[in-house]
Amino acid sequence: MNSDALRAILSKLQNGDLQVDQAAQAITDQGSNSMDSWVRVDHDRESRSGAPEIVYGESKTAEQIAGIMEVLDKDGAGALATRVDSAKAGKVLEIMGCGQYLEQARVVLRPRTQTREPGIGSIGVICAGTSDLPVAEEAIAALEFLGQNVRRIADVGVAGIHRLMDVLPELRSCQVLIVVAGMEGALPTVVAGLVDRPIIAVPTSVGYGVSMGGFAALVGMLSSCAPGVTVVNIDNGLGAAMASLRINRSRNER
Amino acid sequence: MNSDALRAILSKLQNGDLQVDQAAQAITDQGSNSMDSWVRVDHDRESRSGAPEIVYGESKTAEQIAGIMEVLDKDGAGALATRVDSAKAGKVLEIMGCGQYLEQARVVLRPRTQTREPGIGSIGVICAGTSDLPVAEEAIAALEFLGQNVRRIADVGVAGIHRLMDVLPELRSCQVLIVVAGMEGALPTVVAGLVDRPIIAVPTSVGYGVSMGGFAALVGMLSSCAPGVTVVNIDNGLGAAMASLRINRSRNER
Amino acid sequence: MNSDALRAILSKLQNGDLQVDQAAQAITDQGSNSMDSWVRVDHDRESRSGAPEIVYGESKTAEQIAGIMEVLDKDGAGALATRVDSAKAGKVLEIMGCGQYLEQARVVLRPRTQTREPGIGSIGVICAGTSDLPVAEEAIAALEFLGQNVRRIADVGVAGIHRLMDVLPELRSCQVLIVVAGMEGALPTVVAGLVDRPIIAVPTSVGYGVSMGGFAALVGMLSSCAPGVTVVNIDNGLGAAMASLRINRSRNER
Amino acid sequence: MNSDALRAILSKLQNGDLQVDQAAQAITDQGSNSMDSWVRVDHDRESRSGAPEIVYGESKTAEQIAGIMEVLDKDGAGALATRVDSAKAGKVLEIMGCGQYLEQARVVLRPRTQTREPGIGSIGVICAGTSDLPVAEEAIAALEFLGQNVRRIADVGVAGIHRLMDVLPELRSCQVLIVVAGMEGALPTVVAGLVDRPIIAVPTSVGYGVSMGGFAALVGMLSSCAPGVTVVNIDNGLGAAMASLRINRSRNER
Amino acid sequence: MNSDALRAILSKLQNGDLQVDQAAQAITDQGSNSMDSWVRVDHDRESRSGAPEIVYGESKTAEQIAGIMEVLDKDGAGALATRVDSAKAGKVLEIMGCGQYLEQARVVLRPRTQTREPGIGSIGVICAGTSDLPVAEEAIAALEFLGQNVRRIADVGVAGIHRLMDVLPELRSCQVLIVVAGMEGALPTVVAGLVDRPIIAVPTSVGYGVSMGGFAALVGMLSSCAPGVTVVNIDNGLGAAMASLRINRSRNER
Amino acid sequence: MNSDALRAILSKLQNGDLQVDQAAQAITDQGSNSMDSWVRVDHDRESRSGAPEIVYGESKTAEQIAGIMEVLDKDGAGALATRVDSAKAGKVLEIMGCGQYLEQARVVLRPRTQTREPGIGSIGVICAGTSDLPVAEEAIAALEFLGQNVRRIADVGVAGIHRLMDVLPELRSCQVLIVVAGMEGALPTVVAGLVDRPIIAVPTSVGYGVSMGGFAALVGMLSSCAPGVTVVNIDNGLGAAMASLRINRSRNER
Amino acid sequence: MNSDALRAILSKLQNGDLQVDQAAQAITDQGSNSMDSWVRVDHDRESRSGAPEIVYGESKTAEQIAGIMEVLDKDGAGALATRVDSAKAGKVLEIMGCGQYLEQARVVLRPRTQTREPGIGSIGVICAGTSDLPVAEEAIAALEFLGQNVRRIADVGVAGIHRLMDVLPELRSCQVLIVVAGMEGALPTVVAGLVDRPIIAVPTSVGYGVSMGGFAALVGMLSSCAPGVTVVNIDNGLGAAMASLRINRSRNER
Amino acid sequence: MNSDALRAILSKLQNGDLQVDQAAQAITDQGSNSMDSWVRVDHDRESRSGAPEIVYGESKTAEQIAGIMEVLDKDGAGALATRVDSAKAGKVLEIMGCGQYLEQARVVLRPRTQTREPGIGSIGVICAGTSDLPVAEEAIAALEFLGQNVRRIADVGVAGIHRLMDVLPELRSCQVLIVVAGMEGALPTVVAGLVDRPIIAVPTSVGYGVSMGGFAALVGMLSSCAPGVTVVNIDNGLGAAMASLRINRSRNER
Repeated sequence: MNSDALRAILSKLQNGDLQVDQAAQAITDQGSNSMDSWVRVDHDRESRSGAPEIVYGESKTAEQIAGIMEVLDKDGAGALATRVDSAKAGKVLEIMGCGQYLEQARVVLRPRTQTREPGIGSIGVICAGTSDLPVAEEAIAALEFLGQNVRRIADVGVAGIHRLMDVLPELRSCQVLIVVAGMEGALPTVVAGLVDRPIIAVPTSVGYGVSMGGFAALVGMLSSCAPGVTVVNIDNGLGAAMASLRINRSRNER
Repeated sequence: MNSDALRAILSKLQNGDLQVDQAAQAITDQGSNSMDSWVRVDHDRESRSGAPEIVYGESKTAEQIAGIMEVLDKDGAGALATRVDSAKAGKVLEIMGCGQYLEQARVVLRPRTQTREPGIGSIGVICAGTSDLPVAEEAIAALEFLGQNVRRIADVGVAGIHRLMDVLPELRSCQVLIVVAGMEGALPTVVAGLVDRPIIAVPTSVGYGVSMGGFAALVGMLSSCAPGVTVVNIDNGLGAAMASLRINRSRNER
Repeated sequence: MNSDALRAILSKLQNGDLQVDQAAQAITDQGSNSMDSWVRVDHDRESRSGAPEIVYGESKTAEQIAGIMEVLDKDGAGALATRVDSAKAGKVLEIMGCGQYLEQARVVLRPRTQTREPGIGSIGVICAGTSDLPVAEEAIAALEFLGQNVRRIADVGVAGIHRLMDVLPELRSCQVLIVVAGMEGALPTVVAGLVDRPIIAVPTSVGYGVSMGGFAALVGMLSSCAPGVTVVNIDNGLGAAMASLRINRSRNER
Repeated sequence: MNSDALRAILSKLQNGDLQVDQAAQAITDQGSNSMDSWVRVDHDRESRSGAPEIVYGESKTAEQIAGIMEVLDKDGAGALATRVDSAKAGKVLEIMGCGQYLEQARVVLRPRTQTREPGIGSIGVICAGTSDLPVAEEAIAALEFLGQNVRRIADVGVAGIHRLMDVLPELRSCQVLIVVAGMEGALPTVVAGLVDRPIIAVPTSVGYGVSMGGFAALVGMLSSCAPGVTVVNIDNGLGAAMASLRINRSRNER
Repeated sequence: MNSDALRAILSKLQNGDLQVDQAAQAITDQGSNSMDSWVRVDHDRESRSGAPEIVYGESKTAEQIAGIMEVLDKDGAGALATRVDSAKAGKVLEIMGCGQYLEQARVVLRPRTQTREPGIGSIGVICAGTSDLPVAEEAIAALEFLGQNVRRIADVGVAGIHRLMDVLPELRSCQVLIVVAGMEGALPTVVAGLVDRPIIAVPTSVGYGVSMGGFAALVGMLSSCAPGVTVVNIDNGLGAAMASLRINRSRNER
Repeated sequence: MNSDALRAILSKLQNGDLQVDQAAQAITDQGSNSMDSWVRVDHDRESRSGAPEIVYGESKTAEQIAGIMEVLDKDGAGALATRVDSAKAGKVLEIMGCGQYLEQARVVLRPRTQTREPGIGSIGVICAGTSDLPVAEEAIAALEFLGQNVRRIADVGVAGIHRLMDVLPELRSCQVLIVVAGMEGALPTVVAGLVDRPIIAVPTSVGYGVSMGGFAALVGMLSSCAPGVTVVNIDNGLGAAMASLRINRSRNER
Repeated sequence: MNSDALRAILSKLQNGDLQVDQAAQAITDQGSNSMDSWVRVDHDRESRSGAPEIVYGESKTAEQIAGIMEVLDKDGAGALATRVDSAKAGKVLEIMGCGQYLEQARVVLRPRTQTREPGIGSIGVICAGTSDLPVAEEAIAALEFLGQNVRRIADVGVAGIHRLMDVLPELRSCQVLIVVAGMEGALPTVVAGLVDRPIIAVPTSVGYGVSMGGFAALVGMLSSCAPGVTVVNIDNGLGAAMASLRINRSRNER
Repeated sequence: MNSDALRAILSKLQNGDLQVDQAAQAITDQGSNSMDSWVRVDHDRESRSGAPEIVYGESKTAEQIAGIMEVLDKDGAGALATRVDSAKAGKVLEIMGCGQYLEQARVVLRPRTQTREPGIGSIGVICAGTSDLPVAEEAIAALEFLGQNVRRIADVGVAGIHRLMDVLPELRSCQVLIVVAGMEGALPTVVAGLVDRPIIAVPTSVGYGVSMGGFAALVGMLSSCAPGVTVVNIDNGLGAAMASLRINRSRNER
């Protein structure tokens, strides 16, 4: 319960503006909402950190997506829906009458019009091959929607490791690194051996046969011989964005 | 190549102390070590960040472990070996003639005698049940060896969620959270819904049947409905420690 | 064997209308149908409990579904077919010339016109997210067809656990709880820690990557750290309805 | 928060025995325990329903098991630890100086000396083969510890289906059925086709090759063609006991 | 090598029509074809046993299927292609200008016009549910094409075991039993406990979730507690037909 | 129901020794045993076919195995227990005071002293490598116990296919072929392309890595490109013996 | 760093054309490109060996494929894109205005117009069945594009092993053998037992059920009892071509 | 058939020492051995290539291993048995009375005393970490037994990629590369991007959790983004040695 609210009730009781029963009821009413303290903290967190709820679009209808985005975008907070194919996105935009669709990232976006505290430092999104770009773009779309500075570093797969070496200074200039790779998923391991930054590895479903829809990359990243690599679900660009936001915000709060 | 070394060679050439061929050879010799620039940076990183190599003890003999620890501990840098069972640990300690064994964590330790810059803030290690403690202790042993401040928060499994609620303020006072859980592995998901911190989830092999040696917890953590949870390998307390170190150091470097 | 039929034969024997051999033959003839006692008991059970056969529509043609539903609906008993997509449902309704299609639940329904003993108490159907609704709706459609009282409790996923706390009294007012969740499937574990009711967990195929079409949720539910959670197949809303009916009927029979 | 406690504080405030700040602090102090309402309810539930915490012994030391059992057994409530092998059980009994070990069930038991409300009706535990007995015995030990009446029905595997037919009346006389089977796990499916009772299927790890430590039985039970079978983890006799207790208690509470 | 051909060469040598070198070469030339003895035996086997090659249609074009069937059907031997969807079957029939398509069985057929020795005894094809019929029909189409007598026994799933009991005499009148079932696949186990015949179990891909496209049924059949059940690949009606033909021919050859 | 018993009751009724109610009760009482008709048929089958129950020894104690074998061996019928390791076998033999242990086959045997109708024709047991011998020996021990003639054909793996060619006539002289192979399990496929006999393939757990305890061999055999191969569980020599017995008996019954 | 370039800089320094700082900078500038030495070597390798980059077409748009092929084909080097379906191939050809599509191989080709050193010896591509041809054709298209001589040897599956025997001399005349097979994938094992050549096994996704999209063939090949078989990913004709090129080039370089 | 033998028979026929029937029989007798032509070729191959049969020791008794090695070592050909643990190796050496045990490689060796044509060029065996050494040593032991020149290149894991760069010239000086790695198995991918040699990747079972006994490394290697990597079974050092021998011999035969 909010302590100001509590004191207000108590003062009214002391002042005779409320009777014991009334004060008890008022406290209880707040108490029946006592779980709301989390909600409220939760809401505070979102307004403070710039991380509103993101709509998971895959198993929702266009109507549901549009409706939820409208609610989220009250007061210009903006809204983002991920994993929306282009046909469904067309319907969503038609229903909402505004917004935009980022095709490669597969996200529908209603940009924020509220001002937001600018991000500090930058988050690097590193991509093994052009086939992995859609997942990287999902991460980037989410990060930019959330007000973060992003650096794109593409096509640095380990089959031609010199390409990676060329971008080492760039990698080292980022505060957090999101490393996106499919097939054997070796890139985060190699990067973690070269760069001293928090690394969030994102396996992608690029590949066939034993790639098993991204499981080869996932288990490769999780069993990496380089210490300190953390991993999110296959193709989960959004999750990596959210994790990097937690890290970067933690830096800034110090 | 080290620029001082290069200038020294060039000055000698300019001074006539070296001929072109000799200077070329000297630069080439260094150049044949040109990969050492990474090595060196790598060494710099370790001395800077307090993260020396950790010995993976599981598939090494006691002799190999003891030998590598001796090398790593030169100049009082200390050394740590993980995944060492008690029988092998006895032999390692006997060969080295010093050090200690943390049985629950299954690590052999030669404490650092060099001074180290103290850690800033604290890293929370949260543990669902007492059965998960060995993995948590591995993370804690590594973090303390690396000079970090650790908070232990144990026995807060989701089957009695009030226990978790009681420790929320403690969770929020940490800069990074390592969340260790076996069986269904739901704890990091619930924590991520309550606390706005970087969260590194560690699935453990506690359980039987469909727990599949920790895979149930692993896939549960990776498919978490709470955004921004990152995951390391099953029972990988060390990996979580290293990842949290990357994050905490990143905070401090700002 | 039906006891009336048996007595009739025996009376005829006693009356001399049948000889021993004829009577033995008559009893044996019924005996060759002695498996029918199960059938009959089975039929008795269905008329008693209000649980007629439900048509599994997925691998049947529209013609087969319509034909079986006509047979089941004799005497106004009603009929229900599950897992029917909208195209096939259109054909089924056209062939039958009556009935209705519940799109979200994916069931075709011919409502019962016979009177039925009303259900006692209510069965709660709890749903983690809007994406899990179709599975919940299948369970609800079956339960309502079977004459049960249902309480819908939606969107109480563990990522925002206060939402679940708010509905605790409602959960506790139900006699049986069906808990539907996809992704990491943590909801039944948390509910089982809070509420002292029979809990049937239904994993859904909502999710991607390591969710593996619902396997992550399934194994999470089966390896739950909360005791006494039982589980049905992925997306098996009907199975959960049937299991809750067995439980609720058992209560009422006491 | 307890309303009596709240009113007491408020009365003191109204009476001038407390100042606003003191009253606010007192309410907050209770509020910092506001999660205890669950704890308390939880404790109430356990004393009411006779379901104290059961110790999961597999990944605990003898010392830990003995210690927890001592705490649980305060006031003669009794205590039970499952999945304890005979060597560890010997140590546990030695440390505690009392209690008994049920070898086949692999449980350590300190019987309850408190009186307990007797169970109503009986719970049937049906076992496909003698190899499955240890899992059945774990369920039985837990149920008897919890004050339930149990019926043992053994060796009725489907390879000789007449054995099952012979016990049908016995099955029908139980309020809940726990059906334990390994290998192909067909028994619960056949039972569910014959008996109209809540059925909790327990797959066992009996078998080899494709039995995969009980996965064949598990997936067979989950994909059963008989409606309304619910399933617990492989070898999880305790879980089945707990689920049947939830059901039987629900019956009795009506 | 054909003995007539060998004798002819040797006679020519004896007669002086060939020299040693020429005869050696001639024998060697045949010898370079010596593998043809198998081919020939193979052809003999097919004409003898009525088991010509069957075309696997799934990964072939309509043109390929039609072409191979034309070759196989020389001299009125007939031809059969399995796993052909209706669109491709239409093209195949159009190209060939004759033949027929059995839609449920998914086979294209050019009936044999050659006379064939009639089959002895009958092969029972037992089917758990109507959803499993396509697989059963593939087996039946193959068996009838191969001149065997088939008995169809449908809809005898174990969820209503009396249906199976009713057909026991029919089952016992067959020489070999092909038992087709999806979901948990318990039917062959129950049949094997009741009937003393060779049993070939065919798991089908009917089901969802943990049925895993037929793997639940497959592993259930392979880990059957009833001895002597043999199993073929998921949905492999043809394979079961071929195996039953091997058995039935073996009977007849005695 | 036994017809003599039925006639006796009916005669008593006709004679006035029983009233209708009493006779009805008596018939019903027998009727509650009506499943015994199967039991009896079952027993008839075993005495007729020489296939007594075989004891699955793996998850039974020495006491249990010895006790069951004593019961089975009444009247000199003999008894066989499979999957018994040498330590447990020693105890079993000690308890029974008679019998023998076949170490490679891992079976305990009490030979039959009753006469038995001799087997007709022979069953070939073909073994890819010496490592697969234990599984082959289990099949052979069971077949010989059951009175069948067995031909052993060992070490004919496909890596040296000429070895297989050399034994083709021997293979063709058998009525049924059991083909035992580990690793890639290709042998049954090659045999089925060469020999026109019923083939029961037995995958073994010989191998490592991707052999996955016999799964590579199992799936290879099930997806064989040669038609008509049937398969039993990994290492299931007994199951193959039982299946071949069903086939060979079927031949002889004609 | 190129030694000529280095000497040139050093000479300028010696000659006074550069100061130490300028020379240091010039060397450093080259040094910042020092990774290019690999790039350069890499380019040398490709022009030397005739192995330009091949475009992985599956997860790229037609525009991306066409664009990359244009770049690769500068100076008539030719370009190849694999895993392109016919619809996308049509667009690629339309955008490029030249090139050809090999439908069975699913590759888009811009033939090389530069002269290339002819391949030495020939690479055999052996195919178990006609269903496996597309994978074999991908390998062949790549090999011919790369200037190698290829021998096609089709339809030699192990179910009729004489077909394989007939082509043994042809197999032995090749320098390297690519062996393509689906289903149980036994062909490479049998070939490796007969022929003394490097063997690259390619499992295909031909089959159903336990073939698991090629996993049965893959694990069969990897656990082959014939020594020295190496394996590539399922359906990876291109990978096999590249591996055989490495081997054949190695032969020629001697 | 041996041509000398054939000519001898034919000469006898021509000389009248044999009649046509006798000659036909003699040729047929040899013909029944006509598969021996492969055997002979096989033996020729072994004596020519220096690749005698290697004994797979894992599932053989010490007696079996010793016996087979004695046979193989006739005439000083030497013999090698792999996967022998130290206890069993002690017994093997004791039985044979000679030979040696290489503990790390886990092989028993009877060195060849026959002279052998020396190997040409060298085969590189590259090892990611010290934990992978036993597998590398198995490959090396086999290669040296087979007369090949081996280069050991150890501890060049990708987590510190500069270590790999340092040995590039050494890698390039080898004719074939065997690359041994556990955990995520990224090393062969990185090597293949840098070096233009045939590469045989060997995944090892080093690791835990998602490493799944080497499956993570295996699938990573098979789905490598670097073209032309071939793979053998997990821990299969021998298989890699045999494959490299096939390649190196192919080079030398040119």
